[in-house]
Amino acid sequence: MDRRKMIGLAGAGAFGAAAAGVVGSQLFDRAEPARASDPGAAVPFYGTHQAGIVTPAQDRLHFVAFDVITDKRDELIALLQKWTAAAARMTAGKDAGSIGAVNGVAEAAPDDTGEALGLPPSGLTLTIGFGPTLFRTAEGKDRFGIAGKRPDALADLPKFAKDALKPEISGGDICVQACAHDPQVAVHAVRNLARIGFGVVSVRWSQLGFGRTSSTSRNQQTARNLFGFKDGTANLKAEDTALLDEHLWARAGDGADWMAGGSYMVTRKIRMVIETWDRTSLGEQEAIIGRNKGEGAPLSGAKEFDEPVFSTNGSDGRPLIPANSHVRLAHPEMNDGARLLRRGYNFVDGSDGLGRLDAGLFFIAYQRDPRKQFVPIQTRLSRQDALNEYIRHVSSGLFACPAGISGTEDYWGRALFA
Amino acid sequence: MDRRKMIGLAGAGAFGAAAAGVVGSQLFDRAEPARASDPGAAVPFYGTHQAGIVTPAQDRLHFVAFDVITDKRDELIALLQKWTAAAARMTAGKDAGSIGAVNGVAEAAPDDTGEALGLPPSGLTLTIGFGPTLFRTAEGKDRFGIAGKRPDALADLPKFAKDALKPEISGGDICVQACAHDPQVAVHAVRNLARIGFGVVSVRWSQLGFGRTSSTSRNQQTARNLFGFKDGTANLKAEDTALLDEHLWARAGDGADWMAGGSYMVTRKIRMVIETWDRTSLGEQEAIIGRNKGEGAPLSGAKEFDEPVFSTNGSDGRPLIPANSHVRLAHPEMNDGARLLRRGYNFVDGSDGLGRLDAGLFFIAYQRDPRKQFVPIQTRLSRQDALNEYIRHVSSGLFACPAGISGTEDYWGRALFA
Repeated sequence: MDRRKMIGLAGAGAFGAAAAGVVGSQLFDRAEPARASDPGAAVPFYGTHQAGIVTPAQDRLHFVAFDVITDKRDELIALLQKWTAAAARMTAGKDAGSIGAVNGVAEAAPDDTGEALGLPPSGLTLTIGFGPTLFRTAEGKDRFGIAGKRPDALADLPKFAKDALKPEISGGDICVQACAHDPQVAVHAVRNLARIGFGVVSVRWSQLGFGRTSSTSRNQQTARNLFGFKDGTANLKAEDTALLDEHLWARAGDGADWMAGGSYMVTRKIRMVIETWDRTSLGEQEAIIGRNKGEGAPLSGAKEFDEPVFSTNGSDGRPLIPANSHVRLAHPEMNDGARLLRRGYNFVDGSDGLGRLDAGLFFIAYQRDPRKQFVPIQTRLSRQDALNEYIRHVSSGLFACPAGISGTEDYWGRALFA
Repeated sequence: MDRRKMIGLAGAGAFGAAAAGVVGSQLFDRAEPARASDPGAAVPFYGTHQAGIVTPAQDRLHFVAFDVITDKRDELIALLQKWTAAAARMTAGKDAGSIGAVNGVAEAAPDDTGEALGLPPSGLTLTIGFGPTLFRTAEGKDRFGIAGKRPDALADLPKFAKDALKPEISGGDICVQACAHDPQVAVHAVRNLARIGFGVVSVRWSQLGFGRTSSTSRNQQTARNLFGFKDGTANLKAEDTALLDEHLWARAGDGADWMAGGSYMVTRKIRMVIETWDRTSLGEQEAIIGRNKGEGAPLSGAKEFDEPVFSTNGSDGRPLIPANSHVRLAHPEMNDGARLLRRGYNFVDGSDGLGRLDAGLFFIAYQRDPRKQFVPIQTRLSRQDALNEYIRHVSSGLFACPAGISGTEDYWGRALFA
């Protein structure tokens, strides 16, 4: 069943119907790249690189990390093949399986869970990554005969200063990043992958997010994180193709040929102590970030996209952009030119039992080699960043995301298992 | 600072800009009732009834319950006045306070947290309710001199069969339901109310939701819950004004004059065991719900809005709509005509540590008297509903939501404290 065919019957959510410009019984009859003006449309699943990396960041996230609970290589490969087929269908706005949610025989469980019936593709992307423990378990076991294929770039992250990681929401053998303009579509996709994976994988942790905090295209306006500041102004963007080749995409010569065209993903769940932040003066907030709050301009400039000038001093003889400000410490100029493609989301997970909202940033960054990019940047930030007083890293993930799927014969991980 | 004025500067999120039909530097320059075709618009804050009850259900929810941590009546009233002013501003798309996020003096904390800068009003509604413990604490203390004003209809809910309530995410002295088409706008509102309430209230629990599962207007198409079924087909709708007078709005003669024009809210966080549900056959799922999954028609009919006919038997001599089906047991015909205005949302709160998604329905229902509506319906459901095998009620709330705010001199709770 094609979900789009259901729209006249089942109705789109208010968002889907309105944003895609349809009303009542009109049908979506085309799938084309998502544009800001048509967030209901589909993002192509097949391509050189996986979708969901340089794809203009969608507004909603459901991220999931799985543990693989079988030791059988064939079962894992069979699941990856089933997942790939389901992902191709769901990103096109179809049910997860060909029989679907409602067309099955009454005696069988549906092969789609149904909650996305009638909703358009909504820009859904599904991006897979393989964690270090897939190659060799924490106990040292090479369950799937791929320990030798672990990329050097997929080196375990060091413990950073002030890390407060919870193991139960960190790591994972396989991750899937589901992004869409409608959370119900992202949740539906993750839930169906978990359903299909029953007996082979188990959900280790998952995270919802909203309000993309890092634009990944020059056509997107910069969103704000829960500190109230624009986030992602200086991010790598889809249009920076030369920079992407240098900083984002792994190459055959990099050490793991099967990762050519892929990228390495680091996730960090960063809890913000927003109640303390909210009682901090505007001037101090701006000094900590190194940008002003309204426009998002560096404190050395006037406009958001002005390049920060770290050498400029104020009338007091001190740098306009303080030495321990976030923007200064994270800037490529301070990190041997290292850059990241960030793709984070805001989160609120209810409250923490201590009278505070449990809120913050779910940081996601893609890069060619974390050893040269995330690790040195975060080492510096974790030691010196003035923002550390207001944040706590509570979860961490590291995943190798292979190249894109070339066609219907290809599947997630084929290059790894070939 | 008017957030709408910021749009050309700071940019709208992809959703806001696209859905409201604006691009680039265009400004929102009017506030009018939210329509499905313009989810960026404002919903009027002032009126006979509080907004957020019969307002066409927005797509996103942030619900918060507060404990009042002062015993001083004056402090509580002062907070309610400050909250009302902030709510009027935020629902109009403005900063929470007149100085705002970025226009303050550098030495003072901003009076808005800033993360909604540039976002349109997004249909935000803020609906307040007062819990039983505001009138008298669990220890029996009448902290604010209002114990005598507790409505009889605000009687503590009984313990229902199979209740598995967690006290730490149940109850609360005051609740605020924030609904909007953009989660960042709903989160911003709750976060700023919490900020303003520092020292007077403390966040007890909060819940995010998405994908409104009960339409509250005939102009909305019925959304689906995480069982994959349409939810809210037979809901009370904004257009049913005679039914609303009978079933939704409290009256002066009902026993608590200060609640005239208000309504009573019941919340239930209903965890779904979706992994088990997903392995249940389509036929069994439909028999449990009493409707088919694709169209949402009652099993006695063909179309979604066909009235269920409980007396019709199938060829096997048994009712087409089984005796223990959800739709039958919840139907007014089985409950002395009792009806609810439901306004629930789907939730996914990550995973549960046991390999499963922590997902379900955050049920919200408004009514004239829970003793005659929610309580008898839920008593029946909790004993007989076939759905009970797949759900667990983990949180419960009960709140008296007063009438609307008449103008700038009025404030949340004035009739109660007068």
